[in-house]
Amino acid sequence: MHSSPSHGTDLLPATVAWLGARPGRVRLLEQTLLPLETRFLELETVPQMVDAIRRLAVRGAPAIGVAAGYGALLGVQHMVRASTAELVQRLVEDCRTLVAARPTAVNLFWALERMESAGKAAHARGLDAAAALDTLFAEAEAIHREDADQCRRMGELGAPYVPDGVAVLTHCNAGALATGGMGTALAPIYVAHSQGKRVSVYADETRPLLQGARLTAWELSQAGVPVTLITDNMAARVMSEGRVGAVFVGSDRIAANGDVCNKIGTFGVAVLARHHNLPFYVVAPTSTFDPTVPTGAEIPIEEREPEEVTEGFGRRTAPTGVRVYNPAFDVTPAELVTAIITEAGVIERPDRTRVLELLSRARHRALAAG
Amino acid sequence: MHSSPSHGTDLLPATVAWLGARPGRVRLLEQTLLPLETRFLELETVPQMVDAIRRLAVRGAPAIGVAAGYGALLGVQHMVRASTAELVQRLVEDCRTLVAARPTAVNLFWALERMESAGKAAHARGLDAAAALDTLFAEAEAIHREDADQCRRMGELGAPYVPDGVAVLTHCNAGALATGGMGTALAPIYVAHSQGKRVSVYADETRPLLQGARLTAWELSQAGVPVTLITDNMAARVMSEGRVGAVFVGSDRIAANGDVCNKIGTFGVAVLARHHNLPFYVVAPTSTFDPTVPTGAEIPIEEREPEEVTEGFGRRTAPTGVRVYNPAFDVTPAELVTAIITEAGVIERPDRTRVLELLSRARHRALAAG
Repeated sequence: MHSSPSHGTDLLPATVAWLGARPGRVRLLEQTLLPLETRFLELETVPQMVDAIRRLAVRGAPAIGVAAGYGALLGVQHMVRASTAELVQRLVEDCRTLVAARPTAVNLFWALERMESAGKAAHARGLDAAAALDTLFAEAEAIHREDADQCRRMGELGAPYVPDGVAVLTHCNAGALATGGMGTALAPIYVAHSQGKRVSVYADETRPLLQGARLTAWELSQAGVPVTLITDNMAARVMSEGRVGAVFVGSDRIAANGDVCNKIGTFGVAVLARHHNLPFYVVAPTSTFDPTVPTGAEIPIEEREPEEVTEGFGRRTAPTGVRVYNPAFDVTPAELVTAIITEAGVIERPDRTRVLELLSRARHRALAAG
Repeated sequence: MHSSPSHGTDLLPATVAWLGARPGRVRLLEQTLLPLETRFLELETVPQMVDAIRRLAVRGAPAIGVAAGYGALLGVQHMVRASTAELVQRLVEDCRTLVAARPTAVNLFWALERMESAGKAAHARGLDAAAALDTLFAEAEAIHREDADQCRRMGELGAPYVPDGVAVLTHCNAGALATGGMGTALAPIYVAHSQGKRVSVYADETRPLLQGARLTAWELSQAGVPVTLITDNMAARVMSEGRVGAVFVGSDRIAANGDVCNKIGTFGVAVLARHHNLPFYVVAPTSTFDPTVPTGAEIPIEEREPEEVTEGFGRRTAPTGVRVYNPAFDVTPAELVTAIITEAGVIERPDRTRVLELLSRARHRALAAG
């Protein structure tokens, strides 16, 4: 799809891809088998896609959105000779089935809304089923392309912040595996690497679910970026030894004042970075901002099952019945964030004014372009 | 052995104990099966003790010292009718065998030195084998009693620093399981609990070897102290939510300037505590200080096998061949330490002058007592 100069991410298998012309299939990298097996799923039906999303074979909000967009094509792609009304009715049903696969995933909801609207608009414009299908395929591809473009843009805007000759540290997985492109937090790293900078990464393993060990270490290795795995509690030592020059993380949700909600452990890394005078960068598309939430204190934090902590590795490693606290996310206050890198620009020293300025600029630009 | 008022640690099985009179056996709590099974080893021979120490059935420097002292009795206890020369020769051989079980364990070396010296002194004084054995049994018991007394004293001196009604956070296991008494970092917690303070603990699981999940959560639960298990990267969130009022940790080695070497992750917790204005207490006997090491920078840090990180739970959780950095310890600079609590007194705001003052006072007191 992209004809840019060869770089590390070209070596990565696509997280989500449409295979063949029409009718075709969705190919997903089966992430539950990583890092030990690189296997692909080829999905031909909506229920297969629902199952894949539910099992976390595909994860990461942007990647789920891209997969869902293609997933919405699977049930209708054969209906070339049906009426457009029948096609749209089937599309709406399939979107309802798909959206229930992970009810809280915002990108899933948003991508399916786009697919449904595209179908309805085609019907309203009086297109026949074949032409309506053209529109739907174009919409699913647009969702994918826009995600990949945003990743690339964040990578380009963020690359100048990646230090040369000293490693960066990252937490969790905000890479190609979580998106339809080269990732968020890892995008600047991939771009800087492709530009010839001497780039290397320390990856926090990220307990309890080990996304750093299982996914980040895997994708960076595959892409040829030198990576060293550490347990989360080694980050402070790694920083004090001068091994890293900056921190790059992604985000699940950003408040209007720039407070950053991300995978549990991110806030601790931010405190350690400040203690060691290291810059702390958050890389996230503007869609991550939630201007209706004034500060991080208002972001609800999901608490998950104790077994993730006590039996996370296939066998029990804590006393039976022990009390566990297992928040899935934490909030890094904006004052610990050096800059938020988005596809629409970089917000240095983020605060409410600077966040709202960037979002408003991005909205104007989108309206002007649209 | 102690007739103090009943408290939580009375509910804990002894980590090390001498069973029966003479000849007797050493009973060890089999720590490799914790937290899922509480099983005991009864050792009757020196090779059995070597095996137990090597397999980490007993771990924690003070507990290993106590076990080794008793272990040195196992081979000689039947030699009542031998010559004292034969007995001492056998003792020296057994001590050599035992010391090789874990060559870097300082307390192991030190305890066996004491046993060997006691045997040689008995011989020099012309005692017969039965009387020499009396001396050796007394020495092994003294090693155990002194360790237990030091723990209790650290507990008493540290208890006033344990907050009432808000939890404390601890890292790794510096509890009863690591000593011949009620532990180091956990001793103030046990004493405060027995005094009726509302005490509770957040225990970092402590990757890679999970001493917090496997051992600290177990022993606190057994002793009736409310404990909540978290992954290491949750400590920052727990602090920012106001859930803890202080941090208590142990130490493996303390430099002359008060820099504290302890289990990897301790330094990060100290940085987080400072960020949240929480006191950070180190609890360790004066034998932990190494005045020949001027600062923490001179303490060599052991790097351990990558498999502890990549296969720590019985199955591989990281890509094959990934680079791993696995330092077993880190150094917390003295300026992040609120106080070091020893059996000989509390060093607030530790620095070189205050450390050497306390050590010199402790030495005079020991000389005066001895």
